[in-house]
Amino acid sequence: MKKTAVLLYPQFSEYELSVALSILMQGKKPIVTVGLNHQKIMGESGLTCLADRQLSDINIEEIDSLLLPGCMDIGTLVDEQELLYFIQTLDSQGAVIASISSSPYLLAKAGVLKNKYYTVGLPLEGMKQLGVFDLRYHSDELIVQDGRIITARGRGFIQFGLAFGKALQLDFDEQWYK
Amino acid sequence: MKKTAVLLYPQFSEYELSVALSILMQGKKPIVTVGLNHQKIMGESGLTCLADRQLSDINIEEIDSLLLPGCMDIGTLVDEQELLYFIQTLDSQGAVIASISSSPYLLAKAGVLKNKYYTVGLPLEGMKQLGVFDLRYHSDELIVQDGRIITARGRGFIQFGLAFGKALQLDFDEQWYK
Repeated sequence: MKKTAVLLYPQFSEYELSVALSILMQGKKPIVTVGLNHQKIMGESGLTCLADRQLSDINIEEIDSLLLPGCMDIGTLVDEQELLYFIQTLDSQGAVIASISSSPYLLAKAGVLKNKYYTVGLPLEGMKQLGVFDLRYHSDELIVQDGRIITARGRGFIQFGLAFGKALQLDFDEQWYK
Repeated sequence: MKKTAVLLYPQFSEYELSVALSILMQGKKPIVTVGLNHQKIMGESGLTCLADRQLSDINIEEIDSLLLPGCMDIGTLVDEQELLYFIQTLDSQGAVIASISSSPYLLAKAGVLKNKYYTVGLPLEGMKQLGVFDLRYHSDELIVQDGRIITARGRGFIQFGLAFGKALQLDFDEQWYK
């Protein structure tokens, strides 16, 4: 079975990610956590993690889906060309992409949100300043699914995980989380 | 400010832990993650973590509270004498202790649940076989607080985090999680 790539970056939000991760585990979906490099990665709540692989070592042929946690400091990531190229390549391959909180900013920057409805955990004024969001497609909903692209605001983290598991047609018990 | 010790062990449940961790971060409560040794620790959903310190290196004087995630394989931990002694010592110092899913088994084994109401994410038959639980104090509630001891079943992970934050008198916005 192909894998879900799970991006980890400094200041990633542990709780926004963790229900989706648990659903992947329940559904026996293999994952690979991916860092920008081989350094230790501390989440926003202080959990220090090690990615399984770094971005340059990923064989993209073995990946069919992508999970992006939010990040308190997402602005530091949007000029990472290798990261944007990774997202673009997976999108062009038809990957299921799930992105929460601030991380749809990366999708917008990579061009993945073009003509797609989406939500994001950023204030409207901030979004306008960033200049990469098409506000005609923006929604205030907690979670938005447009085809194989799932976006959510942070506090929708449970529904986000459920939607990702369903999009991947995984078998899991949602009563674990409510 | 004294710290919360956060136990990490192989197969710990990331999602059961993560909302409590986020609330500690919101409330600016310092934490130290604690492993049994210095090895990498993989959670049940595949996140590889590094503990900040190992059990033998903790200065117990700087700790006032303890957070225990659930673990798919809790039975492997109950004979770790150093771990049980760590829990007993913190309890005798009056620490706030929050324990979810299967991990109250460690509290019971350490004697911390004596004459305390509690819940646990284990089946009743299994609990009877383990022989360390006083069933007169057992509750089926999702979360139980008896003084400074908070226990929860796994799917109560959000209420568990909220109760821990309140017991520590932290300032946080619970709307992040619902």
